[in-house]
Amino acid sequence: MAFDRLIDKIVEMQNPTVAGLDPKLDFVPQFIKDRCFAEYGENLKGAAQALLQFNISLIDKLYDIVPAIKPQAAYYEMYGPEGVKVLAETIAYAKSKGMYVITDGKRNDIGTTMEAYSIAHLGDTRVNQQMLSPFGADALTVNGYLGTDGIKPLLKVCCEKDKGIFVLVKTSNPSSGELQDLKLESGETVYERMGAMCESWGESLQGSYGYSGVGAVVGATYPEMLKELRVKMPHTFFLVPGYGAQGGGADDVKFAFDKNGIGAIINSSRGIMCAWQKQEGKTEKDFADCAREEAIRMRDDIQSLVGKMTVN
Amino acid sequence: MAFDRLIDKIVEMQNPTVAGLDPKLDFVPQFIKDRCFAEYGENLKGAAQALLQFNISLIDKLYDIVPAIKPQAAYYEMYGPEGVKVLAETIAYAKSKGMYVITDGKRNDIGTTMEAYSIAHLGDTRVNQQMLSPFGADALTVNGYLGTDGIKPLLKVCCEKDKGIFVLVKTSNPSSGELQDLKLESGETVYERMGAMCESWGESLQGSYGYSGVGAVVGATYPEMLKELRVKMPHTFFLVPGYGAQGGGADDVKFAFDKNGIGAIINSSRGIMCAWQKQEGKTEKDFADCAREEAIRMRDDIQSLVGKMTVN
Repeated sequence: MAFDRLIDKIVEMQNPTVAGLDPKLDFVPQFIKDRCFAEYGENLKGAAQALLQFNISLIDKLYDIVPAIKPQAAYYEMYGPEGVKVLAETIAYAKSKGMYVITDGKRNDIGTTMEAYSIAHLGDTRVNQQMLSPFGADALTVNGYLGTDGIKPLLKVCCEKDKGIFVLVKTSNPSSGELQDLKLESGETVYERMGAMCESWGESLQGSYGYSGVGAVVGATYPEMLKELRVKMPHTFFLVPGYGAQGGGADDVKFAFDKNGIGAIINSSRGIMCAWQKQEGKTEKDFADCAREEAIRMRDDIQSLVGKMTVN
Repeated sequence: MAFDRLIDKIVEMQNPTVAGLDPKLDFVPQFIKDRCFAEYGENLKGAAQALLQFNISLIDKLYDIVPAIKPQAAYYEMYGPEGVKVLAETIAYAKSKGMYVITDGKRNDIGTTMEAYSIAHLGDTRVNQQMLSPFGADALTVNGYLGTDGIKPLLKVCCEKDKGIFVLVKTSNPSSGELQDLKLESGETVYERMGAMCESWGESLQGSYGYSGVGAVVGATYPEMLKELRVKMPHTFFLVPGYGAQGGGADDVKFAFDKNGIGAIINSSRGIMCAWQKQEGKTEKDFADCAREEAIRMRDDIQSLVGKMTVN
């Protein structure tokens, strides 16, 4: 239940990180693009197939040391229906390798529409007598601006299918404070209120390790808030973007963890996908090996400050 | 520029309404499903093809009297990549009939990721020397919780490609007030602040009729707020859900319009898609004719309170 499966994998690998698979075509090595354009044409299908081969190579080099991937839906939708098909194929491939998959879709809507998103990304669609999985991720990022009506349908699917959600609380971008940091009459900020709502939504989805199935997105770029929210949201597991390319370091993200070294998973996307560009003497042919090296460096970097991860 | 194309169509047809295409399989007549399952199998493809045929029949009966459709992405994603392909095909078909298309995706993210969503739904993707359109809607609904970083990339595409966005301000659902109605220290509510941000984001995208390309979603179910926001957001075009099935009537939505009878478009989804169920003596074979009748009734209902729509 809740994020137990994810936490088990984190503890087993002693690695609380997730590889963001946000494969812009610019990030894909030329030899992969050439091969796919030759086979499928210089079109959205050729581009989408290049993303898939890129993702598969990365997953092959990461699955035994990194517990999870986080594909960002936008980078697949950008290549149209062919790109979205590759999102589904990437999820299926990562799961076949035992990885936990967090679809980063930041979906939000109400009632039956949110039920449709829940089914799309985490559940099963009924077609006559069959139940079929449209995308089948393990967790989904969501936006809570619409309140409880937008979250409840997810909780049902999470409960039935052992899945989780991450609600945007305090995002990592420079302008996140424009709305999120505003003070309410009650004295709380908007993000604190959203955090409190996460704690309350999670009450019905408690896991075995103290964390519910309703997680929160809290950016590494605001370490003071991360620290404060860790205390205020003791039952909420954090997905932390902003490490690496966006400027957050291990010193910043350490606040996301509890005394047992659990409670959060740290994302790196470009840092891993484009690692070869930062390693001396490497070419794009080395992208997958370099991604693995960077994933290990990141794991060790975080481990050095967080210590051993244990569950009671 | 901005929503001028949409406003021109509304004035031409004297109809400020949009047909929501949220085609749950349950809404699709059995004879269409039987035909598609026989041809494509009882699977996600068969289901998706049934949605497509349903949509095409509806568009054929609506395009000369209704200016726009609003497909809700969730109901397509629910059928996996095959469903998402049907979203693209529905958009293309509606555009071929001259309709304005608003993709209801409530997308949100930051920086380059939001740029990817902008390109996906409104713009063109570069594949080597070609610029290709992934989904090609005219407008997209978005969530502004992440602030300006999440909106700016859209403004660029809107400006270059003559497109628009609708930002969630005050949604139509029962729990929308949990966050949106909270009072800030400044005395404003959260939704008023979001509304003010819309006015400011729209400044760079002014159209010829006084409305910018940054619209707002404001629910028909809160008529007092609709009235108040119409005054406070004079340059923001409204997309108004909640008419019909959700309980809002013409008496409620009239507040969304300005003295010239423009400034808003009212959505009805189930009311139109499932109209045959409410009309005496009709069967599911009549679904498209009944949808047209309901669209005309809705147009006349709103016209009777809003009067003639004119642009200066």
